[in-house]
Amino acid sequence: MRHFIEELEHLQQKLLEEAGLVEAAIHGSIKALVERDEGPAQDVLRNEARINQLEVEIDETATRLLALQHPMASDLRLIRAASKINTDLERMGDLAVNIVERALGLLQQPVVKPLIDIPQMASLVEFMVRSSIDAFVKRDADLARGVLASDDAVDDLRDSIYQELIEFMQRETTSIPASVNLMFVARNLERIADHATNVAEDALFVIQAIDVRHGRELHADEKAG
Amino acid sequence: MRHFIEELEHLQQKLLEEAGLVEAAIHGSIKALVERDEGPAQDVLRNEARINQLEVEIDETATRLLALQHPMASDLRLIRAASKINTDLERMGDLAVNIVERALGLLQQPVVKPLIDIPQMASLVEFMVRSSIDAFVKRDADLARGVLASDDAVDDLRDSIYQELIEFMQRETTSIPASVNLMFVARNLERIADHATNVAEDALFVIQAIDVRHGRELHADEKAG
Repeated sequence: MRHFIEELEHLQQKLLEEAGLVEAAIHGSIKALVERDEGPAQDVLRNEARINQLEVEIDETATRLLALQHPMASDLRLIRAASKINTDLERMGDLAVNIVERALGLLQQPVVKPLIDIPQMASLVEFMVRSSIDAFVKRDADLARGVLASDDAVDDLRDSIYQELIEFMQRETTSIPASVNLMFVARNLERIADHATNVAEDALFVIQAIDVRHGRELHADEKAG
Repeated sequence: MRHFIEELEHLQQKLLEEAGLVEAAIHGSIKALVERDEGPAQDVLRNEARINQLEVEIDETATRLLALQHPMASDLRLIRAASKINTDLERMGDLAVNIVERALGLLQQPVVKPLIDIPQMASLVEFMVRSSIDAFVKRDADLARGVLASDDAVDDLRDSIYQELIEFMQRETTSIPASVNLMFVARNLERIADHATNVAEDALFVIQAIDVRHGRELHADEKAG
C-alpha cells in the first residue's frame, strides 16, 4: 500500500474529479433546459455511470484507509468529511439527471416562457456548489460560510417560482404538464443547494473542527474524545 | 470507555430508537394528510428535534468507535453501515416534515378527493421502511431483497398519481394549488422509499459483505483489501 499521505492525497484528487463531473452535469442539465438542446442532456446521461463509479472507488479508498491505517484526529476528520462529501456529490449528480429528464420532457411540450426565475436560481446554485468544493479544497471558512448564507436566497427564489407557476397554470391550463416539469426542476435545484450546504458544513468541520449541523457548535476534539 | 461490544450494542440501540421515531413521523405525516388532522402534524414537528439530536449522537458514537477502537473487518463494516443508515433515517425524518408542511397547506385548501393512490403508496413505503430496518436488525437478507424489489412498484404508483393529478388540474383549475401539494407528497414518499432502499442495501452489505450499489456485486473483503 502507498504511503498514507499519498493515499489521502489520492482520495482528495478522486473527490475533485467527481466534483468536476458533477459540476459539469449540473451545468449541462440547465443548458439542456434553457437552450432546449438534447446534446448536453445526452452528455449528462452518459457521464452518470462515471460519477457512480467514482463514488464507489472513493468509498472503497476511505474504507481501506480507515481499516488499515487507523487514522487519528485530523486525518480521521478529513476521511469522514471526504466520505460524506462523496455521498453528497453523487446525489447532486442524480439530481442533475432528474433535471435532464424534465428538460427532455419539456422538449415535447409547448415552450413556457420566460422560464420564470429558473436560470437565476440555477446560477446561484451552481455558484454554491463550486464554492462549497473550493471551500473544502482551499480550507476556506469564509467561502463555506458564504454558501450557508446563500441557502435562504435559494428558498426565496424557489417560493417565487412556485407561486408564479401556480398562477400560470391557472391562467393557461394547456401549460400544466410543462409547468409541473418546471416546478420539479426548481425543486431539484433547491435540493442540489441543500447538498452544497452539506458540503460547506463538512468543509467547516475539517477547517475549524466544529460541527455546525443542527445549530450545534461542538469542538470535534470534544466529539471524538 | 465501555467495552467495545457494549458500545456497538449501544450504537445499534440508538439507531433503533431513531428508526422508531422516524417510522412514527412518516405514519403521523400521512395520518395528518388523510384525516385532515392537525394533531399528528404537530406531533411530527415536535419530534423532529429529537431525531436530529439522535443523529448527532449516533454520528459521535460512530466517530469515537472508529477513532479509539480501530475496528477491523466485520465490526468496521457494521459501524460504517450504521453511520449510513443514520444519515438515511435523518433524511426520512426531514421528508416526513415536508409531508406535514404539505398536509398543513392542504388544510387551508378545498378537499381533493379521493386522494388518488396516495394512501396506497404511503402503505407500501411504510412497509419498506419497517422491513429495511428489520432486515438490518435481524440480519435478514430476504427481507432486504424484498425492499429492493418493491422500489419499482413505488415508481409506478408515483407515475400514475402524477398523471391523475395533471388530468385533474386540467379539469378543475381551482384544485391546482392543492394538487401541487399532493404531487409533492407523492414525490416525498418516493424519496422516503429511496432511502429505505439505501438502508436495505446497507443491511445486505453487513449481512452478505457484498456491495449491491450501482449493480456491482463485490465481496467486501475484496473491497477492504
